Amino acid sequence: MGLIGMMVGTTGFFTHEIIHYLFHLKWELADAYIQNNDFYMTWICILGIGLAMIVVSSGLVVFFCPSSSPSGLPEVIGFLNGTAVDHIFNVKTFFGTFISCVLAVASGLFCGPEGPMVHMGAIIGFGLSQFESETLGFQLPFFTRFRNSADRRNFITAGAGAGIASVFRAPVGGLLFVLEEVASFWDIRLAWQTFFCCLMAAFTTDLLSTSFNGFLNRGHFGFFKAENRILFWVKNLLDMSVIAFIPTIIIGILGGLLGALFISINIKINAFRIKIFDAIERDFIRNLSKLLEALLILTATATVSVYIPYFFPCTPAVSLEDINSDNLFHSIPSNTSSLRDISEYNCPAGITWQDNNGIRQTNRTFNQAAALLVENGKRGIMLLFQRGTHEEFGYASLFTALSFYFLFSCWTAGTAVASGLVIPMLYTGALYGRIIGLLLMTIFGVEVEESPSWIDPGLFAAIGAASFFSGVSRLTISLTVIMVEITNDVQSILVIMVAVTVAKMIGDLFNSSLYSALLKLKSFPYLDSMPCVFHGKKLINLELFSASDVMTPHVRVLYLHQNIASLADLLINTNHCAFPVVYKPDQEHVEIFLGTITRSELCMLLMNDQIFYTSSDGEPFNSRPYLKYEEITVEKLPDVAQVTRLLDQYSTDPEYQKFFINLKPYLNKSAVAVQSQFSLHRTYIIFRTLGLRHLTVVNSRNQVVGMITRKDITTWRLVDKLGFCDSDEDPLD
Amino acid sequence: MGLIGMMVGTTGFFTHEIIHYLFHLKWELADAYIQNNDFYMTWICILGIGLAMIVVSSGLVVFFCPSSSPSGLPEVIGFLNGTAVDHIFNVKTFFGTFISCVLAVASGLFCGPEGPMVHMGAIIGFGLSQFESETLGFQLPFFTRFRNSADRRNFITAGAGAGIASVFRAPVGGLLFVLEEVASFWDIRLAWQTFFCCLMAAFTTDLLSTSFNGFLNRGHFGFFKAENRILFWVKNLLDMSVIAFIPTIIIGILGGLLGALFISINIKINAFRIKIFDAIERDFIRNLSKLLEALLILTATATVSVYIPYFFPCTPAVSLEDINSDNLFHSIPSNTSSLRDISEYNCPAGITWQDNNGIRQTNRTFNQAAALLVENGKRGIMLLFQRGTHEEFGYASLFTALSFYFLFSCWTAGTAVASGLVIPMLYTGALYGRIIGLLLMTIFGVEVEESPSWIDPGLFAAIGAASFFSGVSRLTISLTVIMVEITNDVQSILVIMVAVTVAKMIGDLFNSSLYSALLKLKSFPYLDSMPCVFHGKKLINLELFSASDVMTPHVRVLYLHQNIASLADLLINTNHCAFPVVYKPDQEHVEIFLGTITRSELCMLLMNDQIFYTSSDGEPFNSRPYLKYEEITVEKLPDVAQVTRLLDQYSTDPEYQKFFINLKPYLNKSAVAVQSQFSLHRTYIIFRTLGLRHLTVVNSRNQVVGMITRKDITTWRLVDKLGFCDSDEDPLD
Repeated sequence: MGLIGMMVGTTGFFTHEIIHYLFHLKWELADAYIQNNDFYMTWICILGIGLAMIVVSSGLVVFFCPSSSPSGLPEVIGFLNGTAVDHIFNVKTFFGTFISCVLAVASGLFCGPEGPMVHMGAIIGFGLSQFESETLGFQLPFFTRFRNSADRRNFITAGAGAGIASVFRAPVGGLLFVLEEVASFWDIRLAWQTFFCCLMAAFTTDLLSTSFNGFLNRGHFGFFKAENRILFWVKNLLDMSVIAFIPTIIIGILGGLLGALFISINIKINAFRIKIFDAIERDFIRNLSKLLEALLILTATATVSVYIPYFFPCTPAVSLEDINSDNLFHSIPSNTSSLRDISEYNCPAGITWQDNNGIRQTNRTFNQAAALLVENGKRGIMLLFQRGTHEEFGYASLFTALSFYFLFSCWTAGTAVASGLVIPMLYTGALYGRIIGLLLMTIFGVEVEESPSWIDPGLFAAIGAASFFSGVSRLTISLTVIMVEITNDVQSILVIMVAVTVAKMIGDLFNSSLYSALLKLKSFPYLDSMPCVFHGKKLINLELFSASDVMTPHVRVLYLHQNIASLADLLINTNHCAFPVVYKPDQEHVEIFLGTITRSELCMLLMNDQIFYTSSDGEPFNSRPYLKYEEITVEKLPDVAQVTRLLDQYSTDPEYQKFFINLKPYLNKSAVAVQSQFSLHRTYIIFRTLGLRHLTVVNSRNQVVGMITRKDITTWRLVDKLGFCDSDEDPLD
Repeated sequence: MGLIGMMVGTTGFFTHEIIHYLFHLKWELADAYIQNNDFYMTWICILGIGLAMIVVSSGLVVFFCPSSSPSGLPEVIGFLNGTAVDHIFNVKTFFGTFISCVLAVASGLFCGPEGPMVHMGAIIGFGLSQFESETLGFQLPFFTRFRNSADRRNFITAGAGAGIASVFRAPVGGLLFVLEEVASFWDIRLAWQTFFCCLMAAFTTDLLSTSFNGFLNRGHFGFFKAENRILFWVKNLLDMSVIAFIPTIIIGILGGLLGALFISINIKINAFRIKIFDAIERDFIRNLSKLLEALLILTATATVSVYIPYFFPCTPAVSLEDINSDNLFHSIPSNTSSLRDISEYNCPAGITWQDNNGIRQTNRTFNQAAALLVENGKRGIMLLFQRGTHEEFGYASLFTALSFYFLFSCWTAGTAVASGLVIPMLYTGALYGRIIGLLLMTIFGVEVEESPSWIDPGLFAAIGAASFFSGVSRLTISLTVIMVEITNDVQSILVIMVAVTVAKMIGDLFNSSLYSALLKLKSFPYLDSMPCVFHGKKLINLELFSASDVMTPHVRVLYLHQNIASLADLLINTNHCAFPVVYKPDQEHVEIFLGTITRSELCMLLMNDQIFYTSSDGEPFNSRPYLKYEEITVEKLPDVAQVTRLLDQYSTDPEYQKFFINLKPYLNKSAVAVQSQFSLHRTYIIFRTLGLRHLTVVNSRNQVVGMITRKDITTWRLVDKLGFCDSDEDPLD
């Protein structure tokens, strides 16, 4: 766990630093043109660099490792819920995601690195705990005891949490995020292992940041400056009035409404995108058009970013100067370099000096729209959250930024680059939160010079950010903690909580969270912890149905003494993962259910023909050789080709008709079975709570009558199966 | 949920205010004697008032409502795990706990109000959601839909969380505390309902505090001053160095060791106490001796509190003056009253003025030991956490306070008053944390006048508090969040996390957490989420055992067509809560298992004799009258006396020998059953995860062969049953 945390922390640090470096390199190259007000050259320069980045970023995803696209978060959620997804956890995907994410964010698309960081964290958790890699083809002799699906799931969970912890420097927030959104199974032991992992991740990122800083500058290795650590530190804690809850509730409602709108538009765009791309038949052209879409989005985004700021005048940067001098985001402090800040854009250069009383004075100016649209989202959030900067941003720039950001981030999410939505969500929310704050200021007329009061646009920006994030993701606890951890403002926890709660309530009226909508769109057989099936607008009461209503009947069963040829035949002709084993005690009795055995175990058994016997051998089973449990339980068949060859041989060669195998020592005697009259609700709970993959249905005499798999009880399948039934039948009859 | 939150918040507010008022009243009465250095009169005065309080507090618990004793927290944990406990959730217990807790804390015992607040929160959650009270004998026609055990459990969970949220003003911390320690069952819907409940509780407490403040003073209703809101606000955030992690780890190790020691001593004391008291046969004398023990503890505590400070000289209160003037704890700000602070004790009165530069100067002095021992724990923690007060407390006072506090709080916990352990734990930890901080100062020689550095005893006090709390309770996540919420110091979250993690790891080497030790001491059949059975030092692998090893064989079963007389007989002669129902399809077949039916359902059925039939009636069951499911599913039998009378009549009257009842419409067809060869591990998981109360064991032909109840699979029962088995037998054989 500690190792995973450190690795994820290192990855998070590099992601952040490389994005920062590339982004600033880009704008430095364009700086000369900006200062000359040469719009076309700026545009060409920024767009050119951006396009080059996107070609690599999107090309990687499209042609090289499709599993990296777009954010990986739904895939991780789906995997932890119990769905197997190919390739999402291999080394190729890791590097693909890393490069694609870094370049996509640096290119200026309205997206953030959070979703991919969670995905990368999960990959690290997976890979490091196993010390093996299929892609690289090695398997080290460490940690073999962790090579089972339960431990692997735990490591993935912890890695995902560490991803969030590292990117936000919010260890507890990362842990809670995983608990609330990502993990489907959870116990207290896992909780504190994840806690430790997140701690190590945040610690490593901090340590690397400071040491890197120290390397380039007069910084001090291992000296954690509070100001560097906390992402969006707000310095003035505000006393709070109960009246502040009224605008908070308004912001919450707005957040719920806009969040629901965002989800609805995003899902429509994604569904449309899938439809269009699926219509293209040739792989290469389909992939090329995905790439072209990403380029198109970048072109639009870059055009807006470069063009819009020319319409805005320069504004004195009095209170922003504090932030710039603190340099929360730059590894290279600006007071030792002569670099211009991006937000100064085409404004004349200014200087900063200290007056006789030692107070900083400045005649620097900055461009509001450039600060909001050109800067990357993180820096923008920083500016918006800042307290005591009542008049830095006007309605015009805020509204402009809001509309473009909302639309473009909605369009960007789901395109063929590895990108996350968290920063855009926080940013959009911060924009309208600040608008509400400005409105309040206009109405109540608070003077800037007054002592800190609760009517502060910076506070409302934070509330807005939380509300929109909540409206889209429907997170509550983890979001509140993350907000506290990134702003270091425990005082406003109550208003944040209110905004988050209201936004979630309002949003839930319209649709479900973005992640669950994406899971549905991607047809993951995701199982909620509680079944909730609607027929039209009507909630179907699953107590009125029984297990037999959803099971797949006519299951192929195996016998305790199974004929080899028919077994091979069964394995060739079906693709089920597990088979019930039955036993007929004597002539009078029916075949009763004993347990289940999985496909891979059967294949492993068939590869060892010393355990076969002919019917003439009699039944001294105990003296016959049998395999140990460890020998047949494998994650993956060692040699698929050989198995296929063997199966073919067994099923066609008539000699194997007379061979049998005794399945008794190998079957899973603890396989859960339910009787067919079990209520469907209860069946679902058993399936989901115990994390089953398949559930045998038996009748009251313990005969196998059907099987239920994960796909059978996903919500949409249940709607199909039960929607047209007459649900008014009496359950007691 | 909102209502529960508000109620709990109100309760929390009153608890806090009344304790504060009583405590200060007591010391004001003694103030004159203290100033005259009249030790005996002070002692008599303080002890007298304290004894009076304890007589009421302990007397209430001992004679009036034993369920209130001591902290209620293990009982709530046990209840939510699925154990029914009598009387813990009624109105009498609520008031008993309230009064007992308030008086116990105010009397000066080394305890806090947290455990009882959780208990009271749970009672409110229980009572308010049901709108009925057995004790008061009413049942309102609201919320009838919440009168089922699942919803009730959720409301109790939320109420318990709100208790913590209110007492610490830490809404997220409360929620996580419940998640980590209290609740056994948990889903995401409950999480955010609890979130809302905790939010309302913290909000209500805040609102009441400010309005109360406004009533007495120039405060302002609904205006949340940051300083009033945050319990132990530390003002100077410190930049952190990586070297700070070394003393942090040392503190963590200390916390783990001392925590384990504390648990071990406390459990020994409690076990001894139970042994002694159980040896006393007469109820009245036993209760009286419980009361006397509480009085004895108070006498010792009060003597130490009053006597020790006389040995300590007066110290200038330069940096403490800031805290006093801020008045974080007093509802009545001291700068408007002429009251002396308790920590001034027998020191001469001083004054505070502002010098020419507007800086506060003071010649006040205070008594270190009085500040630590006489003040209540909350105020003490406040003083210890304070940053920049490097030289306020010396080794002598800290060591003295530490030793007395550790011993007395260990003795107090478990005595017959409603009291919590959280404040004493935080305080003990803060004491040794500050000692470590002082040591560091001595070694590295940091000057007080220097700019804030990470070597600050206040910071280490906070780390120490977290580590000791973690060493005792083994909490991680919730503790970290609570520490952040009460100190408003996000910056030091990493060191807090490290200390907490180390303390937990070290502590786990020695014993389990205090709460689980208490649950074991009280013989609650508590089920951990994972089975962990040790035989001596050896972990027993439950995979090697099967369900049949722990089940109770020879179960009494019911038949689908059940004879009334034998049913009544069965109900009289057994006290099982549920019975399996079996059915014999034809002569050749064995009796197969169909489902279960509970005792209360059977009693309800027997009260309706219109559904009885004689064997001569034939079997046109569908035309016979039957009861609706709602009619027979009751939480509690409406008239126990009548049922007993009926049962007697049925079992003795020979006429009922020929009557039968058809159980088919009433039995629970979704009752989970496992086959007897199921592995014990898997059986435990199914039992625990699904939250069962009883589990039927069947053989492969679906015949009932045994039952497993909660008591059968508790850890100690498993040790008894399996400990002497030969666990080397081959599980595959």
